Amino acid sequence: MYRTNTCGELRLANLGQTVTLAGWVQRSRDLGGMTFVDLRDRYGITQLAFNMETDAALCEQARRLGREYVIQATGKVIERSSKNSKIPTGDIELEVAELTVLNEAKTPPFTIEDQSDGGDDLRMRYRYLDLRRNPVRQNLELRHRMAMLVRNYLSDRDFLEIETPMLIKSTPEGARDFVVPSRMNPGEFYALPQSPQQYKQLLMVSGMDRYFQIVRCFRDEDLRADRQPEFTQIDCEMSFVDQEDVLQMFEGLIRHLLHELKGLEFGPFQRITWHDAMRRFGSDKPDLRFGMEFQEVTDVVKGHGFSLFDNSELVVGIVAEGCAEYTRKQLDALTDFVKRPQVGAGGMVYIKCNADGTLKSSVDKFYDAEALKQIADKMGAKAGDLMLILCGPAMKTRTQLCALRLEVGQQLGLRDPQKFAPLWVVDFPLLEWDEETQRFYAMHHPFTAPKPEDEALLADPGRWGDIRANAYDMVLNGNEVGGGSIRIHDRTLQNQMFHTLGFTDESAAEQFGFLMDAFTYGAPPHAGLAFGFDRLCSVFSGADSIRDFIAFPKNNSGRDVMSGSPSPIAQEQLDELQIAIKKS
Amino acid sequence: MYRTNTCGELRLANLGQTVTLAGWVQRSRDLGGMTFVDLRDRYGITQLAFNMETDAALCEQARRLGREYVIQATGKVIERSSKNSKIPTGDIELEVAELTVLNEAKTPPFTIEDQSDGGDDLRMRYRYLDLRRNPVRQNLELRHRMAMLVRNYLSDRDFLEIETPMLIKSTPEGARDFVVPSRMNPGEFYALPQSPQQYKQLLMVSGMDRYFQIVRCFRDEDLRADRQPEFTQIDCEMSFVDQEDVLQMFEGLIRHLLHELKGLEFGPFQRITWHDAMRRFGSDKPDLRFGMEFQEVTDVVKGHGFSLFDNSELVVGIVAEGCAEYTRKQLDALTDFVKRPQVGAGGMVYIKCNADGTLKSSVDKFYDAEALKQIADKMGAKAGDLMLILCGPAMKTRTQLCALRLEVGQQLGLRDPQKFAPLWVVDFPLLEWDEETQRFYAMHHPFTAPKPEDEALLADPGRWGDIRANAYDMVLNGNEVGGGSIRIHDRTLQNQMFHTLGFTDESAAEQFGFLMDAFTYGAPPHAGLAFGFDRLCSVFSGADSIRDFIAFPKNNSGRDVMSGSPSPIAQEQLDELQIAIKKS
Repeated sequence: MYRTNTCGELRLANLGQTVTLAGWVQRSRDLGGMTFVDLRDRYGITQLAFNMETDAALCEQARRLGREYVIQATGKVIERSSKNSKIPTGDIELEVAELTVLNEAKTPPFTIEDQSDGGDDLRMRYRYLDLRRNPVRQNLELRHRMAMLVRNYLSDRDFLEIETPMLIKSTPEGARDFVVPSRMNPGEFYALPQSPQQYKQLLMVSGMDRYFQIVRCFRDEDLRADRQPEFTQIDCEMSFVDQEDVLQMFEGLIRHLLHELKGLEFGPFQRITWHDAMRRFGSDKPDLRFGMEFQEVTDVVKGHGFSLFDNSELVVGIVAEGCAEYTRKQLDALTDFVKRPQVGAGGMVYIKCNADGTLKSSVDKFYDAEALKQIADKMGAKAGDLMLILCGPAMKTRTQLCALRLEVGQQLGLRDPQKFAPLWVVDFPLLEWDEETQRFYAMHHPFTAPKPEDEALLADPGRWGDIRANAYDMVLNGNEVGGGSIRIHDRTLQNQMFHTLGFTDESAAEQFGFLMDAFTYGAPPHAGLAFGFDRLCSVFSGADSIRDFIAFPKNNSGRDVMSGSPSPIAQEQLDELQIAIKKS
Repeated sequence: MYRTNTCGELRLANLGQTVTLAGWVQRSRDLGGMTFVDLRDRYGITQLAFNMETDAALCEQARRLGREYVIQATGKVIERSSKNSKIPTGDIELEVAELTVLNEAKTPPFTIEDQSDGGDDLRMRYRYLDLRRNPVRQNLELRHRMAMLVRNYLSDRDFLEIETPMLIKSTPEGARDFVVPSRMNPGEFYALPQSPQQYKQLLMVSGMDRYFQIVRCFRDEDLRADRQPEFTQIDCEMSFVDQEDVLQMFEGLIRHLLHELKGLEFGPFQRITWHDAMRRFGSDKPDLRFGMEFQEVTDVVKGHGFSLFDNSELVVGIVAEGCAEYTRKQLDALTDFVKRPQVGAGGMVYIKCNADGTLKSSVDKFYDAEALKQIADKMGAKAGDLMLILCGPAMKTRTQLCALRLEVGQQLGLRDPQKFAPLWVVDFPLLEWDEETQRFYAMHHPFTAPKPEDEALLADPGRWGDIRANAYDMVLNGNEVGGGSIRIHDRTLQNQMFHTLGFTDESAAEQFGFLMDAFTYGAPPHAGLAFGFDRLCSVFSGADSIRDFIAFPKNNSGRDVMSGSPSPIAQEQLDELQIAIKKS
């Protein structure tokens, strides 16, 4: 028995008890007659007190303790003379009678504090020390709690967690697979799953009715910021359900998490169609923590001789409430923001509704007071507001204005990480046109069902872009945290979809053969969705990066700088696998 | 909404209600005026009744339903005229008013019954149909329940489930790794984890204090029967604990599972040292559901002119209670059993204690009644019992007798799958001598701590075989279901261990460098263990094979015959990875 208590639990109620604690030396203070050591473990910090007068040798021993030494201390719980109201154990301290050094420690390369002096690279190299810091540990604690809540919620509703294989068949469709050479079957490869999509659909065919799995998935993509080659999904599937059943079930799950983890109560989640989301917010994952909805003014701005507006498919703006006092410098900065290559707008028009009722714009040359008033009325701007307007091709302009809306929202503090705005985006397009390859691709995946009322359009290639899918995304604070669809369970319709997507019978059979075969033996109507678990954790914490919620993440080159993986392997290993490395 | 109820929930209390069910056609019976269809889903079976007189067209429709068709039926719950007490819904049936075929089904290649007519290969090829069968589904339900119980038990005790990476660094030590070529780092490879051993120890260094994970692990081994290339562990680690803390915690977990899943109550688990387990049962995982303990008779049998016994290091036997009446044929069969190459004994000696008090043996030529009586007394045999005796080199003979003990126990019905005998085997040897390579290997792994009182023996290579480890296995019904150890947290001792195991400083640094580095920054005393989750499920079910508890298992060649993995991949994939397949 190394300890009787943890460093987070002693209170005034424990006064007089003799206890043993163990943990790490957070810091020590030598005040001449007294030495104080803050002892830290996962549960908190307790102050250890050493008195030069009562035990000089012990006190000397305490003074030699370095930062992050692992020690064990036995003593009596006494009341502190100067209490620390900032920590739960701040009323007491341990009058140490016995001290054992369990392990020494080199001085860590950065401070183990909430705000560390260590840079990103250094903290990643010594991730095991970084994990000692409260904020990082709390992220993993949140992740654990969330996983437990999810599992118990779903299990209570008859979902079975079923583990699907990690060594599966490689399919060329979709993102790039990680592959695993098979030693027992030379020349052949397994793939690591990008998702258990096909297996969960098979489980529906097998009558499991309600399935979930918190499961690792893999994608060999060139890593953009905040993507990981391995990531975790909350993967779910249900049988004999329609879209309403699915939305209710998983909206309930997120409502439960918001209640348990954030103490927030929500009624039914807002729903918005994909078309409306694009039109009103320029995004399929709008951040609804604030309004600033798009206002289209194309019709009122035309015919005033401003050729840029006159020649634009769409002129659309947002109203930044109470921002009429923005300085020239602030406005120039916003113009620079939209002109950045990442946003790509040609420029930005502003109109200020001054407090005195006058209007002032960057296009006064073309628009008189009355014309500006017309625009302001159309946009619903009032005295003190600022209008920001972009123009150009419709979809492109909307996307640019979305970036501007988020930026202004950020500047105005409207994207409060402690506020939560969940919503469903529904009625996604079924197919997406790809300019490069000149063909349609499935926006979700080839098993997504079209809306029954749009099925007939499959017969008319000219209308394929108009077909809506029975697909839905859950959006939280501008992040797509989950998404799914009603699956096609009818083989004829599935074949039609494959042909639409350019599969031949042979290529479809090769890739999806066993799933399609399974569907001939009695597939129930089914539907599902998957949440990105890493992302869900980060959004709940109001954090930007998923990396902070992964114990041992990889960097943008797919490297773990702590362990030094990936790495070369021995020639014997290559020989056994019957593969060779080609020099490029 | 596809259904108002499941097929398992309607009772007499629901009489008169109009409900909608959906599921699969289990079977249908056409009784002239009436047609009955058993509708099945995961939750049970409900009988659907169709009446020719009231709705001939509907009845005709019902008669055309094939086995495993997916249908939806709406109707009134009525009382059955002939009740079926074997199923919970057997008191009622559905008087169907409306019937919809949701999906047709080809006739399955085997019967979807508890006892299927399908062979193993066929059922694996159509695993999605096999999973429809009650026993297989129940296995996965048990697995789900057990995982939930484990997680809640550990989470309630402050364990955090922390996900460790699946793409890690390959280490040549131990079993063979599956490797994953890195496209972004050509010529380099990730490995899939054989266990999260190093990561969980890092998590202890990082102060996580109590960690667990139900996690997939991978081993590229030639598959013996009932091994899978991917398998699941309940992986655990704790800080500031000694062996007693660990045994109490995880004995508590298994006690909890036995209570919740089997309704059984257990006090403290029996503990037995590795040496005693070998001496008394010839195994480090003795099946203690029955006694039949080994009885050593070396000293009493010698000196009677029976050279086989006279020249043996060990003569040891078991007493099969009440088996004195075994026929010659039965005894010959047992002799054949021990002489099989898998067991490898030269022969078997028996002594019968007849009911009338006389003794009869296969070695009467050498042992008179008095000598036999002496042996019987030493072995504790009484009238009606049968003694079975083997001889030879000590360890080899014990292993052979262990096989015989289990065989006789099986024949006598003493290995009751509904009975549970958990125990701890402790004090394993730290090191194991390998004849082939003429060196010592770590019996568990190189981080296992020796017992403090045996540490000094590390200085004496001649005594290495005597060093006991602070290692423990949990054994259930003759299966090792879990195992672990106290870890070395002291760097000097760890270096000593590496040298003992034949590592140079360089090779140790290369393989375990980042873990050893981590240990210099304040490693707490820590310990852990891992349960084989697949095995734990099978033992709890009284089943022999783990394959039945895995949704989509692989066969002995590592193949998934359902999906056809592994499989060749496209040349472009190989090119991107900069690897080539070598023709052998």
